[in-house]
Amino acid sequence: MNSEKTPECVVPATLDGWACLHDLYQVRWTQLHKLSAIEKSALFAETKTFLQSITSPAKGHSGYFSMLGHKADLMFLHFRETFDDLNEVELALRQQPIFEYLSPTTSYVSIVELGMYAMTQKIFDELIAQNLKIDSDAWNAAWDERMQDQFNRMKGRVFTDIPSDRYICFYPMDKRRGEKYNWYAEPMKDRTQMMFEHGMVGRKYAGKVQQIITGSIGFDDWEWGVDLFAKDPKVFKDLIYEMRFDRASAHYAEFGPFYTGLQFLADEIEPFLQGKLPK
Amino acid sequence: MNSEKTPECVVPATLDGWACLHDLYQVRWTQLHKLSAIEKSALFAETKTFLQSITSPAKGHSGYFSMLGHKADLMFLHFRETFDDLNEVELALRQQPIFEYLSPTTSYVSIVELGMYAMTQKIFDELIAQNLKIDSDAWNAAWDERMQDQFNRMKGRVFTDIPSDRYICFYPMDKRRGEKYNWYAEPMKDRTQMMFEHGMVGRKYAGKVQQIITGSIGFDDWEWGVDLFAKDPKVFKDLIYEMRFDRASAHYAEFGPFYTGLQFLADEIEPFLQGKLPK
Amino acid sequence: MNSEKTPECVVPATLDGWACLHDLYQVRWTQLHKLSAIEKSALFAETKTFLQSITSPAKGHSGYFSMLGHKADLMFLHFRETFDDLNEVELALRQQPIFEYLSPTTSYVSIVELGMYAMTQKIFDELIAQNLKIDSDAWNAAWDERMQDQFNRMKGRVFTDIPSDRYICFYPMDKRRGEKYNWYAEPMKDRTQMMFEHGMVGRKYAGKVQQIITGSIGFDDWEWGVDLFAKDPKVFKDLIYEMRFDRASAHYAEFGPFYTGLQFLADEIEPFLQGKLPK
Amino acid sequence: MNSEKTPECVVPATLDGWACLHDLYQVRWTQLHKLSAIEKSALFAETKTFLQSITSPAKGHSGYFSMLGHKADLMFLHFRETFDDLNEVELALRQQPIFEYLSPTTSYVSIVELGMYAMTQKIFDELIAQNLKIDSDAWNAAWDERMQDQFNRMKGRVFTDIPSDRYICFYPMDKRRGEKYNWYAEPMKDRTQMMFEHGMVGRKYAGKVQQIITGSIGFDDWEWGVDLFAKDPKVFKDLIYEMRFDRASAHYAEFGPFYTGLQFLADEIEPFLQGKLPK
Amino acid sequence: MNSEKTPECVVPATLDGWACLHDLYQVRWTQLHKLSAIEKSALFAETKTFLQSITSPAKGHSGYFSMLGHKADLMFLHFRETFDDLNEVELALRQQPIFEYLSPTTSYVSIVELGMYAMTQKIFDELIAQNLKIDSDAWNAAWDERMQDQFNRMKGRVFTDIPSDRYICFYPMDKRRGEKYNWYAEPMKDRTQMMFEHGMVGRKYAGKVQQIITGSIGFDDWEWGVDLFAKDPKVFKDLIYEMRFDRASAHYAEFGPFYTGLQFLADEIEPFLQGKLPK
Repeated sequence: MNSEKTPECVVPATLDGWACLHDLYQVRWTQLHKLSAIEKSALFAETKTFLQSITSPAKGHSGYFSMLGHKADLMFLHFRETFDDLNEVELALRQQPIFEYLSPTTSYVSIVELGMYAMTQKIFDELIAQNLKIDSDAWNAAWDERMQDQFNRMKGRVFTDIPSDRYICFYPMDKRRGEKYNWYAEPMKDRTQMMFEHGMVGRKYAGKVQQIITGSIGFDDWEWGVDLFAKDPKVFKDLIYEMRFDRASAHYAEFGPFYTGLQFLADEIEPFLQGKLPK
Repeated sequence: MNSEKTPECVVPATLDGWACLHDLYQVRWTQLHKLSAIEKSALFAETKTFLQSITSPAKGHSGYFSMLGHKADLMFLHFRETFDDLNEVELALRQQPIFEYLSPTTSYVSIVELGMYAMTQKIFDELIAQNLKIDSDAWNAAWDERMQDQFNRMKGRVFTDIPSDRYICFYPMDKRRGEKYNWYAEPMKDRTQMMFEHGMVGRKYAGKVQQIITGSIGFDDWEWGVDLFAKDPKVFKDLIYEMRFDRASAHYAEFGPFYTGLQFLADEIEPFLQGKLPK
Repeated sequence: MNSEKTPECVVPATLDGWACLHDLYQVRWTQLHKLSAIEKSALFAETKTFLQSITSPAKGHSGYFSMLGHKADLMFLHFRETFDDLNEVELALRQQPIFEYLSPTTSYVSIVELGMYAMTQKIFDELIAQNLKIDSDAWNAAWDERMQDQFNRMKGRVFTDIPSDRYICFYPMDKRRGEKYNWYAEPMKDRTQMMFEHGMVGRKYAGKVQQIITGSIGFDDWEWGVDLFAKDPKVFKDLIYEMRFDRASAHYAEFGPFYTGLQFLADEIEPFLQGKLPK
Repeated sequence: MNSEKTPECVVPATLDGWACLHDLYQVRWTQLHKLSAIEKSALFAETKTFLQSITSPAKGHSGYFSMLGHKADLMFLHFRETFDDLNEVELALRQQPIFEYLSPTTSYVSIVELGMYAMTQKIFDELIAQNLKIDSDAWNAAWDERMQDQFNRMKGRVFTDIPSDRYICFYPMDKRRGEKYNWYAEPMKDRTQMMFEHGMVGRKYAGKVQQIITGSIGFDDWEWGVDLFAKDPKVFKDLIYEMRFDRASAHYAEFGPFYTGLQFLADEIEPFLQGKLPK
Repeated sequence: MNSEKTPECVVPATLDGWACLHDLYQVRWTQLHKLSAIEKSALFAETKTFLQSITSPAKGHSGYFSMLGHKADLMFLHFRETFDDLNEVELALRQQPIFEYLSPTTSYVSIVELGMYAMTQKIFDELIAQNLKIDSDAWNAAWDERMQDQFNRMKGRVFTDIPSDRYICFYPMDKRRGEKYNWYAEPMKDRTQMMFEHGMVGRKYAGKVQQIITGSIGFDDWEWGVDLFAKDPKVFKDLIYEMRFDRASAHYAEFGPFYTGLQFLADEIEPFLQGKLPK
């Protein structure tokens, strides 16, 4: 939780949850084909056992996705408590026999994050109204208490399981720092308003799309990763197209590559590796 | 079908059709050459049988293209009902013996789409004229009914077969979100007018070029994929060059890579894999 | 030949000639070295025979270049009547034994093109002066007749052999579509004047440089490919540096990668593959 | 130590320390797996001995990091007295048996550097106040003496060991040279003020983050490399996010890729190469 | 030597010298390690003999560099009389047994060049003062005579050996053609003044740095290649950082990748290939 204690509020607080790794691979199908049926059977069963063992650890969750297009065949999505836990599961996969048949294509390191634009502004205004001196001990104590309250109230949203919907849309993004349109140079009140409008578009899709935002400033090449989950993938196009017209996106969003996939359970890794669409 | 229900119309509706995968490969010719004539004959026949089996499924269509230049030798274009169907045909190809002789170079995931700028504006204006309150139940019911009418009228265009013309031109594109020229910040009426003018240029080439637009917002790295089909490939250059001067393209289009190919039927995969120009 | 028939002339016509493929490779020298002298001798002789067979087809021409730097060792330049012919020669090379020792690095698909800025404007003005109604049958008939005259007069320049000069400079380029300097948004008369000034610089180098422009809008990733041929490669630097100061280049040109090579005849492929500078 | 001796101070001096190499690798796990337990044991022990031998040379320091994500598995960070020493340790690693199981993914060449904006301006002003003529012998002698004092005072900060904290965040960056916001065209006093404000944000994180800046102008593709070390990696996100709103970052920073890792001691290379999270 | 003969001088002349190839490789160390000591000894000796044979040809010079970081291990720098000579030495290396152990990573094709901004303007003004008509035979004869004088006076600087200093810094660069800051649209007098100021910064480093500029317009992907040679590599950082604040660099320079290396003589290739720092 970072905070800003100058007379004008500048930096929105975030609530942080799981450490998160998106890990994408092409399957080396031709090398798999060279195995005998018995070898494949053993290999795939061992892989299933491994996935089952990592899916629901004491803290965190892992999910599996069959990806569309050449950018990847298979994506692992890991939520864990710490970066050590993430690195541990990443290293464990690399020691599995199936790893010989996987070629890493890309990955993404981040932390599940809840942006707190409106709340940060509200708490800031309240503390100012209480005549607290910014950055004084009293201010800091009051600030931390309020933020802890928020965290307690919201922690289920940042320490969440991966939604179970069939389809995923993952993409990283930045806020533009252009020479004319520069998100980080806009007043907090304007940014708060734009994030509110952006959220109102999302709200129209409540029940159709679940969204998990992960923050990657300081961890990976873009500022945020966005994961959308839905029962009907066309909703991704509708939602993102509609959002593209709101001010926060139209003027200030820079998008990275988009990845589209179909979620399956650990048990379905065997048909997947046989080349069948996993359920 | 997404829709916009604020007093000013902002987001154009789209009519969506087939899920679509462009799947491009280099052929590993040197590895093919190492096979005996008998092995090649069996491999190519099996490949032909596979292509024949996927060309005309109950719902959808697949086409095959010999590509010019180093970016790819072979392109598969799949139209299917769902992303599951797309992933299934993609995984099926990866299990074919011929896959050992193919190196994926790129791909594109999208949905056949019909943009509805003028129609969206028209329906919006009519509903306003009926004094319907935007986003009220009555508005939404009327809106959905009109859109369903449009869809019923147009569904043949979004659930279409791949045109049979010899030549294809495929490229992805974005609408520019520059600091001065930003498509998503322009008023709907201006965008509608620009799309109309853009369409008028296309109309001059009616009978010479068939165009299929696919939407990829939320699915792949550009916003749209454009496929043009013609009997004379020079028409691609004439059309796209002429369009480059219209306002929608001159100021607002960002183009990705261009791919040029020659269509052939599943039966012609055998001569193609023998290195002969397929008919 | 495309044409523009609105009251103000916008789109310059082009005269189109050969379909064109630049095809660039690194030689896998280490793999070649593993062959015995006898195997090399046979392989190189077969390659020579192949090149001799494709150099001067009934329609078109092929040229061969030893390239400087790591981007490629060897470039094939094919002029052919149709895209089918281009694809055929491309596929034929891929079936040659030498192809095992070549790694494709890049390629370029285009059509030899003569830009007609001044002539398009002139014909447009004449037809207006004749009070022909734009896009009327009379206008179109007159337009096509004039263009056919131009084509008849100029066809030797678009259906030309590859110049025999020793040195080649190849690069693709775009006309800039910036937010301030946008070639496609400039009035035709200004573009015509800038192309005239650009041509006047080129004229100073008459006799020292031969230039072939190929159009690739709709075919490959840039809008044009430029090939320069000269007896002294320093002339490439002088010419392109001088042009960089004219308005068409300074404000409106975007350049792709540059490739520099030394032309040789099919007979010289043997010493080249032996690692000797071909004559 | 460079200096600027014109009436207006322009170029901030820097204090330079260790030559620095960031050296990143993917581990070829599948190839490692093919070794027998005895072979692995010997290889890993030899690697540990090598790392132990280079960790604390007479002058300099080396550190080891298990990296998150596909961009690298393993990072070596070398501080050495000279570029010769850096090249020597780089070449020595390449001769180790473990090198067969490492694939270089990226690297970064730089020199530990302390920017001296405020101090440069202060010394400049003092010398002007003493009526010394800029670039005169007296000026230069006085300048060099002052800089030597600074260096003596600060040399522990540029000839430092690698901090021992568990987590590292490494990224390269540039100062923007945009057409509107151009760091190198801003007056020294404004740059000094912006760097001061930037430093004040950093100061809030004192005790939580240690920062080492390395300068790479003339050595590598970005202008600076930033290494942050912390006991809690979330602090990287908080710090960099908060800094993104200060003027020096918001308007003038361009960021390269970000790398996140977990530091371990030479002794822990064995469990790491066994695929276990190193302590 | 190009020249500009319009009333206002626009294009600066250049004096051209050696054709130049920068040729960079990663060493395939693991493959080298598989050779026996005897095989290595023979291979390295043969490589040394080859380098000795190409270092000092009748016309030109070649130098060798151990490079820092993953971008290359080894750089060859060739100065030759013609592009044919360059291609010959490049092809000869590719036939050497050592080539099996080298992977090309990048290269750069250019010609040693001396920019003549001030001199071009001076000669232009003198000829105007003589009332010579631009581009007349008399003007051209006078121009060529003056340029030949310059060339005779300066030819030692463009047909020079590679400086023998230990450290090299190589990078390519462009002059910016932005929408606001466009070098090629600035008046010659302003460009001349900026190049003069740029040169004055360089002059401060006389005796510490030797600089060779090579021109690559028409030959490779950037406009110029810059090679700096010094006894102390920190001077590269000081010089380039200081230059970054002059107008020619701050507003108009675009930099490519930077390469840093340590020069060694042909005799030292043996210890280098043994993985020891060459002297």
